[in-house]
Amino acid sequence: MTYCVALKLDRGLVMMSDTRTNAGLDNISTFRKMHVWEKPGERVLTLMTAGNLATTQAVISILDERMKAPEEREPSIFAAPSMFQVARIVADTLREVIGRQADSGQKADAAFNATVLLGGQIAGGPVRLFLIYPEGNFIEASDDTPFFQIGETKYGRPILVRAFERTMSFEAAVKLLVVSFDSTIKANLSVGMPLDVALYEEGSLSLGTPWRMEANDAYYRTISEGWGDALKQAFDRLPDMELPTSG
Amino acid sequence: MTYCVALKLDRGLVMMSDTRTNAGLDNISTFRKMHVWEKPGERVLTLMTAGNLATTQAVISILDERMKAPEEREPSIFAAPSMFQVARIVADTLREVIGRQADSGQKADAAFNATVLLGGQIAGGPVRLFLIYPEGNFIEASDDTPFFQIGETKYGRPILVRAFERTMSFEAAVKLLVVSFDSTIKANLSVGMPLDVALYEEGSLSLGTPWRMEANDAYYRTISEGWGDALKQAFDRLPDMELPTSG
Repeated sequence: MTYCVALKLDRGLVMMSDTRTNAGLDNISTFRKMHVWEKPGERVLTLMTAGNLATTQAVISILDERMKAPEEREPSIFAAPSMFQVARIVADTLREVIGRQADSGQKADAAFNATVLLGGQIAGGPVRLFLIYPEGNFIEASDDTPFFQIGETKYGRPILVRAFERTMSFEAAVKLLVVSFDSTIKANLSVGMPLDVALYEEGSLSLGTPWRMEANDAYYRTISEGWGDALKQAFDRLPDMELPTSG
Repeated sequence: MTYCVALKLDRGLVMMSDTRTNAGLDNISTFRKMHVWEKPGERVLTLMTAGNLATTQAVISILDERMKAPEEREPSIFAAPSMFQVARIVADTLREVIGRQADSGQKADAAFNATVLLGGQIAGGPVRLFLIYPEGNFIEASDDTPFFQIGETKYGRPILVRAFERTMSFEAAVKLLVVSFDSTIKANLSVGMPLDVALYEEGSLSLGTPWRMEANDAYYRTISEGWGDALKQAFDRLPDMELPTSG
């Protein structure tokens, strides 16, 4: 499993992904699920993947190769004129890779599936955030739904629903994601540290270096431990029920 | 879908279940998923079900009929000498009902599946809590894992993991369950109000009347609204991260 979240704030994008992959419970590895492409002043693209690792690595490799051979006719996400066109290229690539596996005589084609979050900005256009499905279609984040999750989304969702605000600072947004990831990591063995984090400030057309939060990261530990206490205090302050029976 | 939780406290049992059933998104009904049998001074049995409604209703009807015809040879949960034997009877009944459906030429046997939570006490024995699987085997709550969830368990799990304590009062336990159910109801359309609640005090061998918490229940509303604010305050009090980049 995997857990990735992208928040679309008024200030820009905040993206976080875990790094655990597993094929069974006893075959666990660490792989980067966040990929970043940047042409400073012109475009910033961030991509996070959930699903079959062979599929997502193939998608990333194809996108990478096309960028390095721009003279080829193949569409490159570095040449596409808009975020929408970038999303179409990624979606088509994803569908092709899955289709190639599914057509090759293997039966478990569902197992080749993957889902992608794509966020970024191209000069002249707004920040946009897309969720791309294995079928090759995609949806875009809106004012009503300004964040997307992929992978193991359920444990970490209630806090996002309750505490997310578009006007948040990047600092508060990272805190929110740490809480959401910590709840998920505590509940599902297939989501694990370290975490990759990327911030993109709208209009900057330049991405600060994404960084990795290790399991022993001081801030992560502060939030992970503090959140348990904070939750309990919040819980204790709510009124107990007056029971209709004596029990 | 469904959401049911049973907490095993030092004081006894607290059980809560939702009442929504659905066959597709446009075929929604309200059905009781909590069933209670009581012989005051001798035994108290509480049962909650998740899964195929035809299966769970058949299980309850069979258990009911056997109790009303005690002269028959069929084992009755009212005659069984221990909670373990009650669990075996329920588990066998569940497996039989599912097997009968699965053998009758229907293909989608997974769709006939159901899971059961059984809690209670029989005079001379301790309070026990079981989770019964569709295969007819079951596990028992222990000191290490003193609560069980069935149905849509993920959204409401983080708060249980963080705030549950065996030493809780019934009042606090009901509050905890309201928070857990509220998070689930907000996230999954197939879990819905009203909620059924039952409390059993260890050694009493008598069950206070289970009650139903309606959507407009004043206490439920207080917690549902108060929890959002409390969460936000708890979240705000945690320190923001000092970002390693300027964004």
